[in-house]
Amino acid sequence: MAKHRKGQSTLQFADMPYLVSAGSVVSAQEGDGPLGKHFDMVLEDDKWGEDSFEKAERRMFETSVRIALDKVRFDTNNLHCLLGGDLLNQIVTAGFAARRIKSPFLGLYGACSTMAESMLLGSVLIGGGYADTAACAASSHFSTAERQYRFPLEMGKTDTPTAQHTVTGAGCVLLSSEPMGKDDPFTRIRVEAATIGRVIDLGITDANNMGAAMAPAAADTILTHLNDTGRKAEDFDLIITGDLGWFGAELLTSLCREHELDLSGRHLDCGNLIYPPVVKYGCGGSGCGCSAATLAAHLLNKMEHGDVRRMLFVATGALLSPGTSMQGDTIPGIAHALSLVREDML
Amino acid sequence: MAKHRKGQSTLQFADMPYLVSAGSVVSAQEGDGPLGKHFDMVLEDDKWGEDSFEKAERRMFETSVRIALDKVRFDTNNLHCLLGGDLLNQIVTAGFAARRIKSPFLGLYGACSTMAESMLLGSVLIGGGYADTAACAASSHFSTAERQYRFPLEMGKTDTPTAQHTVTGAGCVLLSSEPMGKDDPFTRIRVEAATIGRVIDLGITDANNMGAAMAPAAADTILTHLNDTGRKAEDFDLIITGDLGWFGAELLTSLCREHELDLSGRHLDCGNLIYPPVVKYGCGGSGCGCSAATLAAHLLNKMEHGDVRRMLFVATGALLSPGTSMQGDTIPGIAHALSLVREDML
Repeated sequence: MAKHRKGQSTLQFADMPYLVSAGSVVSAQEGDGPLGKHFDMVLEDDKWGEDSFEKAERRMFETSVRIALDKVRFDTNNLHCLLGGDLLNQIVTAGFAARRIKSPFLGLYGACSTMAESMLLGSVLIGGGYADTAACAASSHFSTAERQYRFPLEMGKTDTPTAQHTVTGAGCVLLSSEPMGKDDPFTRIRVEAATIGRVIDLGITDANNMGAAMAPAAADTILTHLNDTGRKAEDFDLIITGDLGWFGAELLTSLCREHELDLSGRHLDCGNLIYPPVVKYGCGGSGCGCSAATLAAHLLNKMEHGDVRRMLFVATGALLSPGTSMQGDTIPGIAHALSLVREDML
Repeated sequence: MAKHRKGQSTLQFADMPYLVSAGSVVSAQEGDGPLGKHFDMVLEDDKWGEDSFEKAERRMFETSVRIALDKVRFDTNNLHCLLGGDLLNQIVTAGFAARRIKSPFLGLYGACSTMAESMLLGSVLIGGGYADTAACAASSHFSTAERQYRFPLEMGKTDTPTAQHTVTGAGCVLLSSEPMGKDDPFTRIRVEAATIGRVIDLGITDANNMGAAMAPAAADTILTHLNDTGRKAEDFDLIITGDLGWFGAELLTSLCREHELDLSGRHLDCGNLIYPPVVKYGCGGSGCGCSAATLAAHLLNKMEHGDVRRMLFVATGALLSPGTSMQGDTIPGIAHALSLVREDML
């Protein structure tokens, strides 16, 4: 068995990478939400003066990376790798942002699980001694996603009850093999383990019910992680999923209960944290940017301040495309998990 | 500096992963080409009896993985990770194939550079002790790509002179931390180093001239690899690019000459190898499946037999989408490289 592997799917980092910095950019809608004061940048105009929403999104992606690096005065020219992706066809947000960042780039696609996939692979690069720094980023934009996946924005369609609202936001976490200096926004948060998800499909076909499509994958990854590491839910102050929304989070709870895993009191979902629970935002937030921005802006601060000492970050993705839905396919889900821990817990 | 990193962008593997097996599936067009006899499976019908080309492509992807594993009698249940991607929106080919393979899965998108990205990350997982096995795969399909990126198939449009023909093919390479047994199709080929590409854009806007858009990235990655490792072109029996095609390969040669690097006599391009040079195939083959199937079926055999002892495998990708072209963007390119070597050269 590989030296740093445990059980079926879990990687354990002997040289645990540090999360030294993070950057986040969101639109006014997220800025007006409960986490509003935590984001580094809140845009008044979600087109940001660009001539398309797509160009605004890629600028948000790039800016989240630059903010994370600027906080620790780290030059993009020294960055060992940028890893990331987004929801747009051919992940053009990440690709075009990488063109301007100019560092080595690895493009990823895991739908809304992308932030966890990016941090997992960034941790593998650093943990294995292949990089000293990795910027891990993901983004989504309501207006680019809506018109690509669903309907023209001009249509002003009404959401179904289980629909979620795509977050307009980008988040970046800077991983490093060692602390960078006394001004690091985070000084003690490390990646101790990560679980690579499997693709799980329970047969959901409703593209307006992504939470239900992703919940089985989240359950599978959480159960696998606990099984591989011999940990219990109680070992974590927080098990946080990406963007299951209100409906998906309930489904996750009941799926875990079937496997005698009680998440009560320690599970939250980024999609339920980012917006106020009003009809406008349906069943909560979604999109790669949801977990990315929530982690970068809010969750890491909670860890740095000691409110959360060990957290299982489980970003979830629905691996459909408009094409697969049109051809009658069901919606496969995936979830990757990272166990983040404060150094004083080790 | 990270222990296993050299120069700006190159990873060096102390525990070099083995390429133990490979699988390839192509359509009749590739089967009738110069490499025809090397492919594991040649389909008479490029719909393979499925009700869409997309479903045929995902079956080809899955089958290439199963062939690679079957050759060494390796059970998918024991596979530590499947890594891969394809050209379809939201990489649904890879995602849906992964649903059936059921192993841990990491979805990647590097356009036609995906095969190299997949092997690079698979090598990092194995080299770092995070996995014992990694199946690295990529695919493309003429009919799915054509109708997604360009025009409805029914239109029967005529190619421009620089256009390339998307390969209908899938290729998988099985990487392992150690040889599997006496029946391994490959017994001595290892990954010694890899270079992560940067996104390079020289301002090409013609989506029918991908070779020109990708050639600058290929040149950048080759020059970076040689610079990082202190190697010369003469150290390689073969420098093989993914799918630059006839026009892009010429441009690469001249871009390298500007940097006093002479590739003559040791550079080939998978896009130029896979089809006979006839008008029907335009400037050569393209698509993720081009380099994936050529490597899996042909190049690794040449290495195993000693015709090529050290090879730089440089898969190249054009990071555009139909959306970016419509919004007037130029076409960024990327190339990732792996240095593959026969054990007797070490």
